[in-house]
Amino acid sequence: MINDKLHNDRFMRALACQSVDRTPVWMMRQAGRYLPEYRAVRKIVPDFMSLCKNPELACEVTLQPLARYELDAAILFSDILTIPDAMGLGLEFIADIGPRLSKPLRDRTSIENLAVPDPELSIAYVSKTISLIKHELSGQIPLLGFSGSPWTLACYMVEGGGSKEFSHPKKLLYSEPLLCHQLLSKITDAIIAYCQMQINAGVNALMLFDTWGGILTTPAYHEFSLSYMRKIIAALPPSTPIIVFTKGGGQWLQSIAESGCRGIGLDWTINLDQAINAVPKEIALQGNLDPTILLADQPAVVKETTRLLEAVAGRPGHIFNLGHGILPATPPENVTVMIETIKNFKAEKASIE
Amino acid sequence: MINDKLHNDRFMRALACQSVDRTPVWMMRQAGRYLPEYRAVRKIVPDFMSLCKNPELACEVTLQPLARYELDAAILFSDILTIPDAMGLGLEFIADIGPRLSKPLRDRTSIENLAVPDPELSIAYVSKTISLIKHELSGQIPLLGFSGSPWTLACYMVEGGGSKEFSHPKKLLYSEPLLCHQLLSKITDAIIAYCQMQINAGVNALMLFDTWGGILTTPAYHEFSLSYMRKIIAALPPSTPIIVFTKGGGQWLQSIAESGCRGIGLDWTINLDQAINAVPKEIALQGNLDPTILLADQPAVVKETTRLLEAVAGRPGHIFNLGHGILPATPPENVTVMIETIKNFKAEKASIE
Repeated sequence: MINDKLHNDRFMRALACQSVDRTPVWMMRQAGRYLPEYRAVRKIVPDFMSLCKNPELACEVTLQPLARYELDAAILFSDILTIPDAMGLGLEFIADIGPRLSKPLRDRTSIENLAVPDPELSIAYVSKTISLIKHELSGQIPLLGFSGSPWTLACYMVEGGGSKEFSHPKKLLYSEPLLCHQLLSKITDAIIAYCQMQINAGVNALMLFDTWGGILTTPAYHEFSLSYMRKIIAALPPSTPIIVFTKGGGQWLQSIAESGCRGIGLDWTINLDQAINAVPKEIALQGNLDPTILLADQPAVVKETTRLLEAVAGRPGHIFNLGHGILPATPPENVTVMIETIKNFKAEKASIE
Repeated sequence: MINDKLHNDRFMRALACQSVDRTPVWMMRQAGRYLPEYRAVRKIVPDFMSLCKNPELACEVTLQPLARYELDAAILFSDILTIPDAMGLGLEFIADIGPRLSKPLRDRTSIENLAVPDPELSIAYVSKTISLIKHELSGQIPLLGFSGSPWTLACYMVEGGGSKEFSHPKKLLYSEPLLCHQLLSKITDAIIAYCQMQINAGVNALMLFDTWGGILTTPAYHEFSLSYMRKIIAALPPSTPIIVFTKGGGQWLQSIAESGCRGIGLDWTINLDQAINAVPKEIALQGNLDPTILLADQPAVVKETTRLLEAVAGRPGHIFNLGHGILPATPPENVTVMIETIKNFKAEKASIE
């Protein structure tokens, strides 16, 4: 474990529900389009995946927000679609639309023929990026790795891109549940190998992004999304804590807490009070500022940040984050206000004691 | 009350949590693009709102699904944006995109100057449509009227159209909560007058579509969406039962149940078991088949329809519906299978007794 060598281990301590001097903070998509320095780097590569596949540049953008803000964790700059890309599904990113897979899995044969990639061969650029980031961080703060969840990757792989209803993967799930399970099993195997590679390369913790688990019915969520995240967690060494984030999963926190995860990502619709009641105190809660708050004026940022901090005050194991990725239109100075509020909240509490 | 004159009052009885011979069923957007006869009518008008504003044609498409299926309620064919249209916000529907308002409310002056329309003048076409439908139905089944919720209408009116994040209305809510309340109050007044007009014209029940309540934080949902729906319910005569549907509102069922509504619409992510536990038995539950089920094969339709019926068996006050609007790609014959399953479920139970 690299954990004990960290200069700032607030994030790791909070994830283990240990006491901290103040609430740690990082932001989903903290390296990204809201930063002018990111947009400058993005300009010198032809497309988004070229940036993900260039370890030096991916390392550079991973570090960019750390130069601006006192964040308590870095997160690997990459994309959840590295695995479908490695599986040969023809990934490209279309400007203003998003990801497109030119070879979506629309029949039995394409699913049966799908091969589980060896990440050390086809996604080695992520391993290289992690090594570079770890070197640059030199033990200052922890580095999070991540993967999309099996169901979320299946959504893109069957639909062929983003969607409102994801009717193709839903149709597969309902009409051919066994074939859907076959696909999810293959993706799960790929994710386990991919996460193990990230651990080997030095990530301190991992996060599973279940962006589309929330479009499922309650029984389908348990059968087709959560059960596969549980398999991933069981297959990986317990020394690397894992955070599960199901967007729209507020109704299922108790089940998520039983997945073996060490932390639960909370979207902004979930009240922290309710999450505290639903989730055992041994499991950390991560979140959950509404990302649109950071588009509002600064008194609103202070007010809502404080509201969240007050809701969990006294409960160990809170990692401050947004309830979803930071929006491209976010003024960078609003992030400063949010982080200062988190730091001041601790200071205020200390002055009362 | 027109209620007691109805030939088929299953829907009204279930909404009052009274016993029924079988579970009543209707479908959100049951008159619409999945039906070839609807598409034929849609072709003869230049745009979607022209169809809504033509009482004869709106009546015709309202009745279309009733000719095909044994549905237990008709729902007025209209759009939730009739009020913003009447407020002069420049509504148009762009093909493959959706609604656009050419004059969105983006500053204080435009909100302060916004006038509450008299629906009897500017939305009289809806009143006329209801009269025609009631005449054609001649007491066979009840007719539902509806309105968008204040927050949902505000989303479109401030954003100027559909959106993933609705960052403009969210920014208004967070940065200028008083101005946001001023807007919501005006919209609420307009909705109350609009619903009263629908009641006067003869609707048997009303539904409030809170399509975008689910994008709010828990406190913001209560303050900016639910509280205004409560005002609407309190202002209308209790003889017309009201169903509240907040998409993504599974975490807030207990609060919704306290709004004065007589029924709660459930999206497909909500487990009916959990809803039964959360909602007092005096309040009806409406839903909640995943609309994508109707894209799957027929055994899946039977299986999932039966699963829902079994989950509520024995609990009075269930109205079968989808968890969201029926999808345009739905094969009409799958609707037949769903409805036959509902009818057979009753028959099977009776044969056991």
